[in-house]
Amino acid sequence: MALEAIRYRRGSLHILNQKLLPAELRYEPVPGVERAWEAIAGMEVRGAPAIALVGCLSLAVELAAGAAPGEDSAALEAFVEQRLRFLLSARPTAVNLYREAQRLRDLIHRQRQSPGASAQGLRDSILEHIEGLLAQDREVNRSLGAQGAEHILRSLPEGANVTILTHCNTGTLATAGYGTALGIARALQERGRLRRVLCTETRPLLQGSRLSAFELLHDGLPVTLIADSAAAAALRHHGVQAVVVGADRVAANGDTANKIGTYQLAVVAQHHRVPFYVAAPSSSCDPQVASGEGIPIEERPGTELTQLQGLQLAPQGVPVWNPAFDVTPHELITGGIVTEFGVFAPGELCQAL
Amino acid sequence: MALEAIRYRRGSLHILNQKLLPAELRYEPVPGVERAWEAIAGMEVRGAPAIALVGCLSLAVELAAGAAPGEDSAALEAFVEQRLRFLLSARPTAVNLYREAQRLRDLIHRQRQSPGASAQGLRDSILEHIEGLLAQDREVNRSLGAQGAEHILRSLPEGANVTILTHCNTGTLATAGYGTALGIARALQERGRLRRVLCTETRPLLQGSRLSAFELLHDGLPVTLIADSAAAAALRHHGVQAVVVGADRVAANGDTANKIGTYQLAVVAQHHRVPFYVAAPSSSCDPQVASGEGIPIEERPGTELTQLQGLQLAPQGVPVWNPAFDVTPHELITGGIVTEFGVFAPGELCQAL
Repeated sequence: MALEAIRYRRGSLHILNQKLLPAELRYEPVPGVERAWEAIAGMEVRGAPAIALVGCLSLAVELAAGAAPGEDSAALEAFVEQRLRFLLSARPTAVNLYREAQRLRDLIHRQRQSPGASAQGLRDSILEHIEGLLAQDREVNRSLGAQGAEHILRSLPEGANVTILTHCNTGTLATAGYGTALGIARALQERGRLRRVLCTETRPLLQGSRLSAFELLHDGLPVTLIADSAAAAALRHHGVQAVVVGADRVAANGDTANKIGTYQLAVVAQHHRVPFYVAAPSSSCDPQVASGEGIPIEERPGTELTQLQGLQLAPQGVPVWNPAFDVTPHELITGGIVTEFGVFAPGELCQAL
Repeated sequence: MALEAIRYRRGSLHILNQKLLPAELRYEPVPGVERAWEAIAGMEVRGAPAIALVGCLSLAVELAAGAAPGEDSAALEAFVEQRLRFLLSARPTAVNLYREAQRLRDLIHRQRQSPGASAQGLRDSILEHIEGLLAQDREVNRSLGAQGAEHILRSLPEGANVTILTHCNTGTLATAGYGTALGIARALQERGRLRRVLCTETRPLLQGSRLSAFELLHDGLPVTLIADSAAAAALRHHGVQAVVVGADRVAANGDTANKIGTYQLAVVAQHHRVPFYVAAPSSSCDPQVASGEGIPIEERPGTELTQLQGLQLAPQGVPVWNPAFDVTPHELITGGIVTEFGVFAPGELCQAL
């Protein structure tokens, strides 16, 4: 059975604590929004789609437990708005939770305008909407994976097998299941056409070695782990057909924010004339932001580089620059942006959706 | 006082165990060649110049202790040759120890041909030659540092300060003192023109965070630590004037082997039009090797990526590709190769020396 990052049934949410992998598989209860905020900010759960899901589902758990005002739609709306604002303060770069928050606001607005709407009916609608997100996300990822795999295969000689290089974790652990960039690897594997996934370790939090390598090995996909620094040498020597990464936010012009190091990979992919793909569900697109310069980039504590589970890796007090993300300019996304609707040129994506 | 990697007086050699930094400053005795081999292969001492020095000095310790045959020059020559061959088997990529071994062979050959040469006289000559290497290396590094600093400053507007980005450790800890690429940083600092050194952490063994950041902070140079993956973003956002790295071997055409990740940095430096310098004492040049394809690249155990001091960072059994070095093609060394004799275009260096 594939790994699950998120386990939900009405009234109950558990997440796999990804900080403990690969040493320990521990699911932790998320009884509401405050614990979800902690889990997101502390990166027990990460990956743009999973952040959005855990945020919304934690709100659903509170609603199912009767935390919201019972008989007043306006008070319910105010409650939901307050909880969403709090959740959105956990991490700034990924757009998916913002998008889901906006969809919830729109739903509430529509419902409150329809004649005879009750607070109870509104609460039920919100719950149903949120609970539908898990299946939607899996569906989107399967479609995205197929689109990406077919696109890559069409660009290669008949019958060729594919080695892809990826960064960070964009798999079942970053989503409701199947994954985005790793979903493309899964779709290639299902077609019998995946030779290997080269997976960077992805410092500082090692989502590549701790999560992607773990997930791929667990699910029987051929994986080789490399240092982040070895990517250019791998492109030169390992016969890589495509670099495929995820996205935390795609601006209107196709500039894409993703895990720190993605920009560097795009530069070296261009140098080696290897197509560079971004796997981004349409929910990662943000037409409100004109270009990458408008995407807020989270800087995280320097201790992520200088310490590891109590080990001191660098001298005490050394200054550190630790951006969690960088922006890849659209012109370096040479393969295209793979969505559930197809593969788009970066500049055409937001208009097309 | 600056850190010392190597402490030597006749009959006694100690090395700073660099695997323990920054947690512990521990000097360990090296009573002879076998312990030196261990220290080199196990990377307690690393850096092409320091490897050559520790190898030769461990031989000097054996000679001073009377380990060699006493009264027979031919037997002494055979002893030295056997010890050198053993030392050379520790690590394949850096050329400096090979060069020093060849210089020793030449010295022995010359001495044995001179009339009236005794085994005792030959032994004394070898000892003196080896003991002179420490001071020579410091001298070479000071000259190299000055050449590099002046070259960089001449290329910039009058009075401009310099931020450099470097990789791995090429400082006092990799040499007899002062350093090569970090020697250039020191020379800029002495001239009051160093704004900052951006130092990559340099996975897998973290020579950047454990050693360079430690050394620079210890010696009062302004340093900021970044993840290896953040280099391209740093070049884009931090106003870097030069990328400066060391070398383990320079081929006749200027192709250069250095720590894994150097090639990637050279590609991203070119993309950002930031000059890329290799700091290489003339002893790192290998005119016997026509191009980078002829340089043997050491592959080290996958456990360097998957484990850290007992912590499991990746799933058990995951395949790993862990080359310790990569080759930067000469055309990407856009700033030039900085030696103690000046800054050379990569293709002209070996001929010029």
